Amino acid sequence: MERNIKLTVAYDGAAYHGFQRQLNALAIQQVLEERMAKIFGHPLKIAGAARTDTGVHAYGQVVNFFTTGSIPTDKIPQAAKGVLPDDIVVTGAEDVSPTFHARLAAKSKIYSYRLYSSALPDPFLRRYAWHLTQNPDTAAMDAAAQLIVGEHDFSAFRAVSRGVQVGPVRTMFAATCRQQGRMVECDFWGSGFLYHMVRNLVGTLVDVGFGRLSVADFAVILAGRDRRMAGITAPPQGLYLKEVFY
Amino acid sequence: MERNIKLTVAYDGAAYHGFQRQLNALAIQQVLEERMAKIFGHPLKIAGAARTDTGVHAYGQVVNFFTTGSIPTDKIPQAAKGVLPDDIVVTGAEDVSPTFHARLAAKSKIYSYRLYSSALPDPFLRRYAWHLTQNPDTAAMDAAAQLIVGEHDFSAFRAVSRGVQVGPVRTMFAATCRQQGRMVECDFWGSGFLYHMVRNLVGTLVDVGFGRLSVADFAVILAGRDRRMAGITAPPQGLYLKEVFY
Repeated sequence: MERNIKLTVAYDGAAYHGFQRQLNALAIQQVLEERMAKIFGHPLKIAGAARTDTGVHAYGQVVNFFTTGSIPTDKIPQAAKGVLPDDIVVTGAEDVSPTFHARLAAKSKIYSYRLYSSALPDPFLRRYAWHLTQNPDTAAMDAAAQLIVGEHDFSAFRAVSRGVQVGPVRTMFAATCRQQGRMVECDFWGSGFLYHMVRNLVGTLVDVGFGRLSVADFAVILAGRDRRMAGITAPPQGLYLKEVFY
Repeated sequence: MERNIKLTVAYDGAAYHGFQRQLNALAIQQVLEERMAKIFGHPLKIAGAARTDTGVHAYGQVVNFFTTGSIPTDKIPQAAKGVLPDDIVVTGAEDVSPTFHARLAAKSKIYSYRLYSSALPDPFLRRYAWHLTQNPDTAAMDAAAQLIVGEHDFSAFRAVSRGVQVGPVRTMFAATCRQQGRMVECDFWGSGFLYHMVRNLVGTLVDVGFGRLSVADFAVILAGRDRRMAGITAPPQGLYLKEVFY
């Protein structure tokens, strides 16, 4: 009998060219499809809830696939451990209805972005946070982040010239920036995210944190819907897909 | 005028064959000597406080070298950032007396060992902790660790057949194992450490944590001075040279 299996996957994206399968570069989707096929005894076609870019990480990527394999669902995480490289870990598995699709059924997602502020870099964080040489005003960043909560046209924070275009309106349920010691974490819980949206938001929030933009400037940029007015695209290594909700 | 410069160095050891320069494999000492030479304008001969093995990390390795270079000492960390790979960071620099030698002058060192206990591994910790699939009894590990405090013959925890032999007696000022969530950290502050001593201690402490040895067994092993009685050598990726005292 064919089953539809939903997996939760954590990965360190440093060694991969993103989640989505590519022709000439190794992606996490390809590794999952090829390695996990050994467990199920037939080729797999795996759908992911979200693309993540090169160098972007995940605690809670969600994928699904159909299988006629006989392995009990609760044995899948341990079996996956035996076939996957140690930078990709299956943390959960469950049987879902045949209509479930990891991307199409997703209702919302949480992304986190980590910043590390210190005059000198930390060698252990070089792949896991954006290093800032000075301490940003996290309260100002948090105040600016509040402005994106609700339904907005996020054109100001969408990557330009990205193939297929979809509408720019998304709903943000929560957005916060919090500091703990030298680490700043910005969390974004939204109905969906445009291409590079979190990284573009963070690049602009950091401008607020360093006083190059005021919170009012940030509001004007959001309302202006012009990507050229916003800040840089924050580097990928600070970004984590944390959780997908259905 | 020739100056003797002391540096504090943090590094992620995952990509290196230890600290000490080798003929056919890349070591941290070699990278420091070759890259830092660019700042000082002449070849450098760098002495390190401690050898660390392949895959072992450091927050506070200490090195020294003599130079006729003119760069102000307080500019060295930023200049080093420009020439070193991003997994090696110079976190401090100071002028010291011509008689200072990073290894010979060291009075004591702190090593830390990190364990991560969870049924499944964490992809972000694979290079930075020893993954245990079950939760050890940290209180028992801590009680056993207390037994090594003071002056002891540590032959039971010394690697066998290691070239030049030195005496096996060392003084441990403190040894603790503490748990925070799924992480266990064992810290060892001692006058000196034999080859593989921390990793052999941790391998044996984990036997205590899983009930394969009692705390009393651990005391017998320490007193027995026979390496064959102790536990396995814990893997390198959990070990950190934390601080060197002079």
